[in-house]
Amino acid sequence: MSSTFTPEDDLRVAHALADAAAAHSMRLFRTPLDIIAKADESPVTRADREAEQAMRDILAGERRADGIFGEEHGLERVEAERVWVLDPIDGTRSFITGSPLWGTLIALVRGGRVELGMVDMPVLGERWIGQPGTGAQRNGQAVRVRDCTAIADARIVTTSPDIFNAADWQAFDRLSRKCGMRRFGGDCYGYAQLAGGTIDLVVETGLQPYDYLGPTGLIEAAGGIVTDWEGQPLGLKSDGRVVAAATRELHRQALALLAA
Amino acid sequence: MSSTFTPEDDLRVAHALADAAAAHSMRLFRTPLDIIAKADESPVTRADREAEQAMRDILAGERRADGIFGEEHGLERVEAERVWVLDPIDGTRSFITGSPLWGTLIALVRGGRVELGMVDMPVLGERWIGQPGTGAQRNGQAVRVRDCTAIADARIVTTSPDIFNAADWQAFDRLSRKCGMRRFGGDCYGYAQLAGGTIDLVVETGLQPYDYLGPTGLIEAAGGIVTDWEGQPLGLKSDGRVVAAATRELHRQALALLAA
Repeated sequence: MSSTFTPEDDLRVAHALADAAAAHSMRLFRTPLDIIAKADESPVTRADREAEQAMRDILAGERRADGIFGEEHGLERVEAERVWVLDPIDGTRSFITGSPLWGTLIALVRGGRVELGMVDMPVLGERWIGQPGTGAQRNGQAVRVRDCTAIADARIVTTSPDIFNAADWQAFDRLSRKCGMRRFGGDCYGYAQLAGGTIDLVVETGLQPYDYLGPTGLIEAAGGIVTDWEGQPLGLKSDGRVVAAATRELHRQALALLAA
Repeated sequence: MSSTFTPEDDLRVAHALADAAAAHSMRLFRTPLDIIAKADESPVTRADREAEQAMRDILAGERRADGIFGEEHGLERVEAERVWVLDPIDGTRSFITGSPLWGTLIALVRGGRVELGMVDMPVLGERWIGQPGTGAQRNGQAVRVRDCTAIADARIVTTSPDIFNAADWQAFDRLSRKCGMRRFGGDCYGYAQLAGGTIDLVVETGLQPYDYLGPTGLIEAAGGIVTDWEGQPLGLKSDGRVVAAATRELHRQALALLAA
């Protein structure tokens, strides 16, 4: 049955999921969150959980046979042909500190391939979507990676030095110092910037499938490439180390420098 | 003559300056900027210069006797009673990489004191303004620093580890590791977050008066404190090392940890 869904059907569902998540998250953004450090079930965690439940309710109505891999409520039918991968609030620390650079990440995975990837930025009013057949868009406007093939010209970003262990930081530092520009911060927005052609490399560690699969679908549709640090495709399982690059040439050089 | 201007007059001029700067900068945001690495006079530099010229033209009409300290076109009558301090595009690297976290910074300094501070974020549509008499606002809505008095609870941000020399990084690292949360990235937006109560400390080095005086006016009006790393007030001259804190208690502890 699920094979009768068109990419347009999938896109419509993804929009509905993102809208549902934003309704929960935006209500809480920039309200006083002092309680957050004091309780296990912080307001942000609650918004995150409620947002994901709202997304799951939509899927229960629209896509009963599909699997779900969510940050907050775990796995459901992940052996299904199609699996929706959900992160209602990616960038919790950005959210807490009043930065607009947090987002909702959605991926539709079919037989191990990402068929749809979305990075939705509610505060910015930017919805970035990629599907293999139709390319990548920001708010309906086509975007594409930059044709950057040399490390010395590349702009690289990662969220923070604090996400790396000592060895991985050494590797990242070695690579990023050879780049034309390195930047920190931004959480999931770095992947959108890559899809939009203003960043050329994103290198991170410690990510979960719901952190990287939405961005992967977006970036692949924009002409880029996303793998683990060994160059292997990312799926529902990985060691959480991600290299996203604008071009194959840049990707190859980045892998070599990380491994050096 | 200049003493006849009211704070409302100053505010009106500041709005006109920010509008003029945004008209130049927003035209260029996210247009292809590949040329930027190849020429001394990059498109961003040109937008920056044109924006500052537009701001100076407004001041030439409205405030003939006032001084000007601008990033792009230098100093004019800085011995005047009132000096306007201008940075049309603060966060050039954010601008180039398509991040929304760059801003226009404006300060009005009178007798060494900041009488008006503005952090305008054109992409976000957020104009943050502080004046001593009337407090601080984001888009007309009152904002205030968070009542955070303990380093262990504090959220600290700085733009990048790369802005520090080795000794200053050691100091920043020592301080920031004692904080409840540390974040990187954000350029001038960190100061706005501090004024809005979602960040408690911003510590940076290598800043110029046009980088810190607009944020200083905003943060002081929001109830916070901004000095150099020795605790001295910031004026048109400093060594460019800045500590901005939500409360005096936090400020005192931060200075001690930086000096330890």
